[in-house]
Amino acid sequence: MSAIDELAGELSKLPGIGRKTALRLTYHLLKQPPEQSQQLAMALQSLAARVRRCSVCANLTEQDPCAICSDPRRDRSLLCVVEEASDIGAIERAGEFRGIYHVLGGRLSPLDGIGPEQLAVEPLLARLREGQVREVIVATNPSLEGEATALYVQRQVGTMGPTVSRIARGIPVGGDLEYADGVTIAQAISARRAM
Amino acid sequence: MSAIDELAGELSKLPGIGRKTALRLTYHLLKQPPEQSQQLAMALQSLAARVRRCSVCANLTEQDPCAICSDPRRDRSLLCVVEEASDIGAIERAGEFRGIYHVLGGRLSPLDGIGPEQLAVEPLLARLREGQVREVIVATNPSLEGEATALYVQRQVGTMGPTVSRIARGIPVGGDLEYADGVTIAQAISARRAM
Repeated sequence: MSAIDELAGELSKLPGIGRKTALRLTYHLLKQPPEQSQQLAMALQSLAARVRRCSVCANLTEQDPCAICSDPRRDRSLLCVVEEASDIGAIERAGEFRGIYHVLGGRLSPLDGIGPEQLAVEPLLARLREGQVREVIVATNPSLEGEATALYVQRQVGTMGPTVSRIARGIPVGGDLEYADGVTIAQAISARRAM
Repeated sequence: MSAIDELAGELSKLPGIGRKTALRLTYHLLKQPPEQSQQLAMALQSLAARVRRCSVCANLTEQDPCAICSDPRRDRSLLCVVEEASDIGAIERAGEFRGIYHVLGGRLSPLDGIGPEQLAVEPLLARLREGQVREVIVATNPSLEGEATALYVQRQVGTMGPTVSRIARGIPVGGDLEYADGVTIAQAISARRAM
């Protein structure tokens, strides 16, 4: 196989990149100085070598425990449960949350064979038994599976002490009522707050 | 900089890949077995090392002359002029053309500082002087710059002997008259053929 077809083949394994886009990216790289391909290759190689799971919260990290778990300024009484490590990045960029995290590693999805045993719920309960956490914020996605997962987490945590809360669903900031779906509008209305 | 940010930064240098997509791809790779990132890295590294320009037609190739230029079954009297080496791939996949190619390496675009000297027109004329080519098919894109480039090539080749032809413009196969632009429809009507 030619080097062009080989790279295009590897690139088209990535989500959202089809055969044509992969070829376009390959030809683009051929027009750039070879250093750009080299830097991309090195970044790919160091990814698997440097990134691992945090042994406390399962965040993706280069140090263990991760930067958040080992930060003394974080509020250890507030624990945010997310589906994936990438969700932590999204919440951190928002800059609002100062507590700690717990990554479930997915969401309940019986059709894909993902039940409670496949998620890091037991490690979550073990962390809660230490007694420092007062509130668990369940920040799974507001999808069908995410809601089922949130309900499951809530039931497991239920009797252990911490209060369990769920992130608000509603119209996104900058969004448009006209284009919002009915379920979201219904949620936004039923969860309305006094001004 | 973290390995995740580093890879996301490199990926977002690629055309059509923004910051969010780059992060999504990075997290996707972290979920895959590390071999996938390694294979992608190796494909990137071998790209610059193995691929070069054909000294005859400027196609991207791993052997010089390229597979097309060194294929004795290709018709050397028919030469197709294209803007980029990637266009050769597109024409070859169509499976219709059995001649040889010449890559200009771009198209006339005075605003981007690309004049005739930046294109491989002189090497094209040198090839034509060898006398084997009877027809030059100009397959630059049917854009403003592509048409200007085609006109320029036609004028340069004009008196040298070979006939010069231009690929047909019209409604794409499987396309829809309703969504075609006016210029294309006008071209399709004026270039109509007897049935």
